[in-house]
Amino acid sequence: MGDRTGIKVFAPASVANLGVGYDILGLCLNDIGDEIIVRKGKKPGLHIKTIYKNKSLSKDIKKNTAGYAAYRLLESLNLTEEPIEIDLFKNMSIGTGLGSSAASAVAGVFGVNSFLGSPYTKAEILRFATEGEQVADGSFHADNVAPSLLGGIILIRDNESLDWTKLPTPRGLLACVIYPKVQVLTSESRAILSENVSLDSVIAQTGNLATFVAGLFKSDFDLIKKSMTDHIIEPQRAHLIPHFAEMKKQALACDALGFSISGAGPSMFALCNNTIIAENIAEKAQQLYSDQGIECECFISEINPQGAIKY
Amino acid sequence: MGDRTGIKVFAPASVANLGVGYDILGLCLNDIGDEIIVRKGKKPGLHIKTIYKNKSLSKDIKKNTAGYAAYRLLESLNLTEEPIEIDLFKNMSIGTGLGSSAASAVAGVFGVNSFLGSPYTKAEILRFATEGEQVADGSFHADNVAPSLLGGIILIRDNESLDWTKLPTPRGLLACVIYPKVQVLTSESRAILSENVSLDSVIAQTGNLATFVAGLFKSDFDLIKKSMTDHIIEPQRAHLIPHFAEMKKQALACDALGFSISGAGPSMFALCNNTIIAENIAEKAQQLYSDQGIECECFISEINPQGAIKY
Repeated sequence: MGDRTGIKVFAPASVANLGVGYDILGLCLNDIGDEIIVRKGKKPGLHIKTIYKNKSLSKDIKKNTAGYAAYRLLESLNLTEEPIEIDLFKNMSIGTGLGSSAASAVAGVFGVNSFLGSPYTKAEILRFATEGEQVADGSFHADNVAPSLLGGIILIRDNESLDWTKLPTPRGLLACVIYPKVQVLTSESRAILSENVSLDSVIAQTGNLATFVAGLFKSDFDLIKKSMTDHIIEPQRAHLIPHFAEMKKQALACDALGFSISGAGPSMFALCNNTIIAENIAEKAQQLYSDQGIECECFISEINPQGAIKY
Repeated sequence: MGDRTGIKVFAPASVANLGVGYDILGLCLNDIGDEIIVRKGKKPGLHIKTIYKNKSLSKDIKKNTAGYAAYRLLESLNLTEEPIEIDLFKNMSIGTGLGSSAASAVAGVFGVNSFLGSPYTKAEILRFATEGEQVADGSFHADNVAPSLLGGIILIRDNESLDWTKLPTPRGLLACVIYPKVQVLTSESRAILSENVSLDSVIAQTGNLATFVAGLFKSDFDLIKKSMTDHIIEPQRAHLIPHFAEMKKQALACDALGFSISGAGPSMFALCNNTIIAENIAEKAQQLYSDQGIECECFISEINPQGAIKY
């Protein structure tokens, strides 16, 4: 009954911005992410058959991040009439600040590319994935899509040309991710940002950013720790996240290398250089948000070096 | 007749900002720079005996960058009454944009520290050198002083705390420096800068800066070349330097990795990865400025790894 053969891919969650790298830095997480099954379809063209775990997402290829990313790939291969069917396992909630729409877009295009026998490399499908994510939030930027697809810590030099570089991950670097279940709209989180930045803040931020990059290359946790203060974005967005200041204070008291907002929030992340510190921070977060009656999920992740994978 | 024994030190010129690193990056040049002879004095305290090659500089310790830097060192050692005499060979013109006052300040403090048997390390005298340079231009920043003292390519994370990191120099990296003999006042060059920067420019600049740093660590000249466009400072200052746009165009046509203003100007620099390119740029510069009736000096320098030295 039907063609049950197919392939399954996983595209991970990601943390964008990393405090000092607004719109240019992102890192890839382990374990959480979206999955897609791709199989031969029964009628011409690409179709989303089932979306599991989320009732609100559109199955219209052009309105779905996974579908549109895959569709752009098929267009470039002149294969839009190829009968392909996909199921999306939308494991991640939407609006977490952990690259949920990026993970779907990556899963969609990486899944269909893999199904077709990988006519393109991962680097070559980055543009389609970014176009897919654009369906969700309207802007063309790759600071979630690139790490989800490529793994590691990714620097996007320029979003338009999608010129990226993978930065080294120091051995032992961990992210502790804290997701308080409150709503922060990405659109609001973007709209709130001032169009201008003081030159003094630029100097402070660039000094930190350059030192952060040097710290990654040198595996120097002291450099990383000194450089993780965001002078530009976090001060403008912190008030959107309940108890951000208190949570940050506690994370730094636990000896996090740094703590900031993940993407547009409400998730936050701490970078740590050992699991005990990360576990302590997660425990503090659970306590703090539970005391405030806010549901909160925490997880600890190494930096995922692989990105999207085919099972 | 008198005590003729003494020591002689050399502190090199430097290129600050490097386009994408306003107030945070600088590199150390070879060959040109200021020299100081330090010897036992005939009366208590630090005295400048002779300043060669410049009639306008004050010999008053507190008004001379070399003198004041050395004085601050002596203060911290409780040696302000020690009889010390210095001669300054002011080889560099003032107002070149090549860290002339920084070289004097470094020579002063490094010379006196060496004369005293090096009670401090180079890193420890950076603050005194920076205080010395502050006499000349009023602001406390180390993007010339640090490379002149320490050598190499220096990243200043934070000017106030003088937190610095030496970045790697890719083998074969050269600077071609072009100094058209016109006056650009540092004070004017600073005053002209807008206090605000658009967030879009910040994103573009930070993407380039982080990639430039990655390029240095990876010895990747392609990354360096892609990342050397300054979106913030150069567009505001370029008009202060005659024929900047034409000179830049010619340097890039010669295959420079990048081209921008050295410090506050009027000097310019091209980074290159071979001597033929650097020589071609120097030749073009001589031609261009000579055609315009502007005297111009060019020189080609490796990145000086040592910084200030004692002969």
